[in-house]
Amino acid sequence: MASNWYSVVIDANDIAVLSRWWAQVLGYSIVFESETEVAIAKDEDTNPGIVFVPVPEGKTVKNRLHIDLNPDDQAAEVDRLIDLGARRADVGQGESRWVVLADPEGNEFCVLTAR
Amino acid sequence: MASNWYSVVIDANDIAVLSRWWAQVLGYSIVFESETEVAIAKDEDTNPGIVFVPVPEGKTVKNRLHIDLNPDDQAAEVDRLIDLGARRADVGQGESRWVVLADPEGNEFCVLTAR
Repeated sequence: MASNWYSVVIDANDIAVLSRWWAQVLGYSIVFESETEVAIAKDEDTNPGIVFVPVPEGKTVKNRLHIDLNPDDQAAEVDRLIDLGARRADVGQGESRWVVLADPEGNEFCVLTAR
Repeated sequence: MASNWYSVVIDANDIAVLSRWWAQVLGYSIVFESETEVAIAKDEDTNPGIVFVPVPEGKTVKNRLHIDLNPDDQAAEVDRLIDLGARRADVGQGESRWVVLADPEGNEFCVLTAR
Protein backbone atom coordinates (compact mmCIF):
# COMPACT_ATOMS: atom_id res chain seq x y z
CA MET A 1 0.00 0.00 0.00
CA ALA A 2 1.16 3.50 -0.71
CA SER A 3 -0.39 6.93 -0.94
CA ASN A 4 -0.70 8.77 -4.20
CA TRP A 5 0.92 12.18 -4.28
CA TYR A 6 -2.11 14.39 -4.78
CA SER A 7 -0.70 17.91 -4.60
CA VAL A 8 1.68 20.41 -3.16
CA VAL A 9 -0.20 22.94 -1.08
CA ILE A 10 1.13 26.50 -0.86
CA ASP A 11 0.00 28.88 1.87
CA ALA A 12 -0.71 32.26 0.31
CA ASN A 13 -1.95 35.70 1.22
CA ASP A 14 -3.72 36.08 -2.13
CA ILE A 15 -4.66 32.69 -3.56
CA ALA A 16 -6.35 34.14 -6.67
CA VAL A 17 -3.24 36.07 -7.67
CA LEU A 18 -0.56 33.57 -6.69
CA SER A 19 -2.33 30.62 -8.32
CA ARG A 20 -2.59 32.48 -11.60
CA TRP A 21 1.04 33.44 -11.37
CA TRP A 22 2.15 29.82 -11.01
CA ALA A 23 -0.27 28.73 -13.74
CA GLN A 24 1.58 31.10 -16.08
CA VAL A 25 4.95 29.76 -14.93
CA LEU A 26 4.02 26.14 -15.57
CA GLY A 27 1.49 26.46 -18.38
CA TYR A 28 -1.10 24.93 -16.05
CA SER A 29 -4.86 25.52 -15.89
CA ILE A 30 -7.05 26.39 -12.95
CA VAL A 31 -8.96 23.17 -12.27
CA PHE A 32 -10.79 24.27 -9.10
CA GLU A 33 -11.45 27.63 -7.51
CA SER A 34 -13.30 28.71 -4.40
CA GLU A 35 -12.72 31.40 -1.77
CA THR A 36 -10.70 28.96 0.31
CA GLU A 37 -8.82 27.01 -2.34
CA VAL A 38 -7.49 27.35 -5.88
CA ALA A 39 -6.01 24.31 -7.61
CA ILE A 40 -3.87 24.35 -10.74
CA ALA A 41 -2.72 21.32 -12.70
CA LYS A 42 -1.50 20.22 -16.10
CA ASP A 43 -5.02 18.87 -16.61
CA GLU A 44 -7.77 17.50 -14.41
CA ASP A 45 -6.45 13.95 -14.57
CA THR A 46 -2.79 14.63 -13.80
CA ASN A 47 -1.40 14.67 -10.28
CA PRO A 48 0.31 16.21 -8.47
CA GLY A 49 -1.16 19.63 -8.98
CA ILE A 50 -0.57 22.72 -6.87
CA VAL A 51 -3.21 23.94 -4.43
CA PHE A 52 -3.22 27.43 -2.93
CA VAL A 53 -4.88 28.02 0.42
CA PRO A 54 -5.28 31.34 2.22
CA VAL A 55 -3.34 32.16 5.37
CA PRO A 56 -3.15 35.50 7.18
CA GLU A 57 0.51 35.31 8.08
CA GLY A 58 3.36 36.22 5.77
CA LYS A 59 6.44 34.18 5.00
CA THR A 60 9.13 34.50 7.69
CA VAL A 61 11.99 32.06 6.99
CA LYS A 62 13.47 30.29 3.99
CA ASN A 63 10.96 27.66 2.94
CA ARG A 64 11.93 24.11 3.87
CA LEU A 65 10.21 22.81 0.73
CA HIS A 66 10.59 24.45 -2.67
CA ILE A 67 9.88 23.81 -6.32
CA ASP A 68 12.56 23.18 -8.94
CA LEU A 69 11.80 24.01 -12.55
CA ASN A 70 13.30 22.41 -15.63
CA PRO A 71 13.39 24.91 -18.51
CA ASP A 72 14.35 24.35 -22.12
CA ASP A 73 16.59 27.41 -21.93
CA GLN A 74 17.61 28.54 -18.46
CA ALA A 75 18.59 32.13 -19.28
CA ALA A 76 15.51 32.78 -21.41
CA GLU A 77 13.23 31.26 -18.78
CA VAL A 78 14.78 33.32 -15.97
CA ASP A 79 14.15 36.44 -18.06
CA ARG A 80 10.54 35.38 -18.66
CA LEU A 81 9.94 34.69 -14.97
CA ILE A 82 11.43 38.00 -13.87
CA ASP A 83 9.21 39.73 -16.41
CA LEU A 84 6.27 37.91 -14.79
CA GLY A 85 7.26 39.27 -11.38
CA ALA A 86 9.80 36.89 -9.92
CA ARG A 87 12.84 38.35 -8.22
CA ARG A 88 16.31 36.94 -7.67
CA ALA A 89 16.81 35.45 -4.22
CA ASP A 90 19.91 34.78 -2.16
CA VAL A 91 19.65 31.73 0.06
CA GLY A 92 23.40 31.35 0.32
CA GLN A 93 23.66 29.38 -2.91
CA GLY A 94 26.89 31.13 -3.92
CA GLU A 95 28.12 30.16 -7.38
CA SER A 96 25.66 27.56 -8.59
CA ARG A 97 24.41 26.20 -11.89
CA TRP A 98 20.80 26.81 -10.83
CA VAL A 99 19.19 30.21 -10.45
CA VAL A 100 17.27 30.95 -7.27
CA LEU A 101 14.20 33.13 -7.70
CA ALA A 102 11.30 34.06 -5.43
CA ASP A 103 7.65 34.23 -6.45
CA PRO A 104 5.51 37.32 -5.72
CA GLU A 105 4.91 36.16 -2.11
CA GLY A 106 8.60 35.42 -1.55
CA ASN A 107 8.58 31.64 -1.98
CA GLU A 108 11.97 30.53 -3.22
CA PHE A 109 12.22 28.26 -6.26
CA CYS A 110 15.03 27.20 -8.55
CA VAL A 111 15.43 27.28 -12.31
CA LEU A 112 17.76 24.46 -13.25
CA THR A 113 19.94 24.16 -16.31
CA ALA A 114 18.16 22.42 -19.18
CA ARG A 115 18.14 18.63 -18.75
CA MET B 1 6.99 28.92 -23.16
CA ALA B 2 6.67 27.37 -19.75
CA SER B 3 8.86 25.55 -17.30
CA ASN B 4 8.41 21.90 -16.53
CA TRP B 5 7.90 21.08 -12.89
CA TYR B 6 10.98 19.03 -12.17
CA SER B 7 10.79 18.34 -8.45
CA VAL B 8 9.90 19.40 -4.96
CA VAL B 9 13.04 19.88 -2.92
CA ILE B 10 12.93 19.20 0.82
CA ASP B 11 15.62 20.51 3.16
CA ALA B 12 16.57 17.72 5.54
CA ASN B 13 18.97 17.01 8.38
CA ASP B 14 19.37 13.38 7.27
CA ILE B 15 18.73 13.03 3.54
CA ALA B 16 19.44 9.27 3.47
CA VAL B 17 16.85 8.56 6.16
CA LEU B 18 14.17 11.05 5.15
CA SER B 19 14.31 10.14 1.46
CA ARG B 20 13.81 6.46 2.26
CA TRP B 21 10.94 7.34 4.56
CA TRP B 22 9.10 9.23 1.81
CA ALA B 23 9.91 6.49 -0.71
CA GLN B 24 8.04 4.08 1.57
CA VAL B 25 5.14 6.51 1.92
CA LEU B 26 4.72 6.94 -1.84
CA GLY B 27 5.98 3.61 -3.17
CA TYR B 28 8.73 5.53 -4.97
CA SER B 29 12.27 4.43 -5.81
CA ILE B 30 15.56 6.16 -5.18
CA VAL B 31 16.62 7.36 -8.63
CA PHE B 32 19.74 9.31 -7.61
CA GLU B 33 21.85 9.39 -4.48
CA SER B 34 24.96 11.29 -3.48
CA GLU B 35 26.16 12.86 -0.25
CA THR B 36 24.50 16.13 -1.18
CA GLU B 37 21.30 14.96 -2.84
CA VAL B 38 18.88 12.05 -2.85
CA ALA B 39 16.09 11.95 -5.42
CA ILE B 40 13.02 9.73 -5.30
CA ALA B 41 10.44 9.32 -8.04
CA LYS B 42 7.78 7.00 -9.35
CA ASP B 43 10.32 6.05 -12.01
CA GLU B 44 13.22 7.74 -13.77
CA ASP B 45 11.01 9.22 -16.49
CA THR B 46 8.26 10.68 -14.31
CA ASN B 47 8.36 14.20 -12.94
CA PRO B 48 7.94 15.76 -10.48
CA GLY B 49 9.99 13.70 -8.10
CA ILE B 50 11.12 14.67 -4.62
CA VAL B 51 14.71 15.70 -3.95
CA PHE B 52 16.24 15.82 -0.47
CA VAL B 53 19.15 18.16 0.20
CA PRO B 54 21.09 18.51 3.44
CA VAL B 55 20.79 21.57 5.65
CA PRO B 56 22.24 22.08 9.12
CA GLU B 57 19.28 23.97 10.55
CA GLY B 58 16.15 22.35 11.90
CA LYS B 59 12.56 23.22 11.08
CA THR B 60 11.29 26.25 13.00
CA VAL B 61 7.85 27.28 11.74
CA LYS B 62 4.90 25.61 10.01
CA ASN B 63 6.00 24.90 6.46
CA ARG B 64 4.52 27.25 3.86
CA LEU B 65 4.49 24.40 1.33
CA HIS B 66 3.31 20.90 2.14
CA ILE B 67 2.39 17.66 0.44
CA ASP B 68 -1.15 16.25 0.29
CA LEU B 69 -1.61 12.51 -0.10
CA ASN B 70 -4.53 10.74 -1.68
CA PRO B 71 -5.01 7.31 -0.09
CA ASP B 72 -7.38 4.52 -1.06
CA ASP B 73 -8.45 4.25 2.57
CA GLN B 74 -7.72 7.23 4.78
CA ALA B 75 -7.91 5.51 8.18
CA ALA B 76 -5.81 2.54 7.10
CA GLU B 77 -3.23 4.81 5.49
CA VAL B 78 -2.97 7.02 8.57
CA ASP B 79 -2.34 3.89 10.64
CA ARG B 80 0.34 2.74 8.18
CA LEU B 81 2.07 6.12 8.19
CA ILE B 82 2.07 6.36 11.99
CA ASP B 83 3.56 2.86 12.10
CA LEU B 84 6.27 4.15 9.73
CA GLY B 85 7.05 7.00 12.13
CA ALA B 86 4.69 9.84 11.29
CA ARG B 87 3.05 11.69 14.16
CA ARG B 88 -0.20 13.61 14.33
CA ALA B 89 0.27 17.37 13.99
CA ASP B 90 -1.87 20.31 15.04
CA VAL B 91 -1.65 23.29 12.71
CA GLY B 92 -4.98 24.68 13.87
CA GLN B 93 -6.96 22.55 11.44
CA GLY B 94 -9.71 21.91 13.99
CA GLU B 95 -12.37 19.48 12.79
CA SER B 96 -11.38 18.61 9.25
CA ARG B 97 -11.89 15.80 6.79
CA TRP B 98 -8.15 15.55 6.21
CA VAL B 99 -5.64 14.26 8.74
CA VAL B 100 -2.53 16.34 9.40
CA LEU B 101 0.61 14.35 10.10
CA ALA B 102 4.29 15.25 10.37
CA ASP B 103 7.17 13.28 8.90
CA PRO B 104 10.20 12.26 11.04
CA GLU B 105 11.76 15.73 10.61
CA GLY B 106 8.52 17.51 11.47
CA ASN B 107 7.34 18.45 7.97
CA GLU B 108 3.56 18.66 7.98
CA PHE B 109 1.58 16.79 5.35
CA CYS B 110 -2.07 15.88 4.92
CA VAL B 111 -3.84 12.59 4.26
CA LEU B 112 -7.02 13.37 2.39
CA THR B 113 -10.18 11.34 2.23
CA ALA B 114 -10.17 8.88 -0.67
CA ARG B 115 -11.02 10.58 -3.96
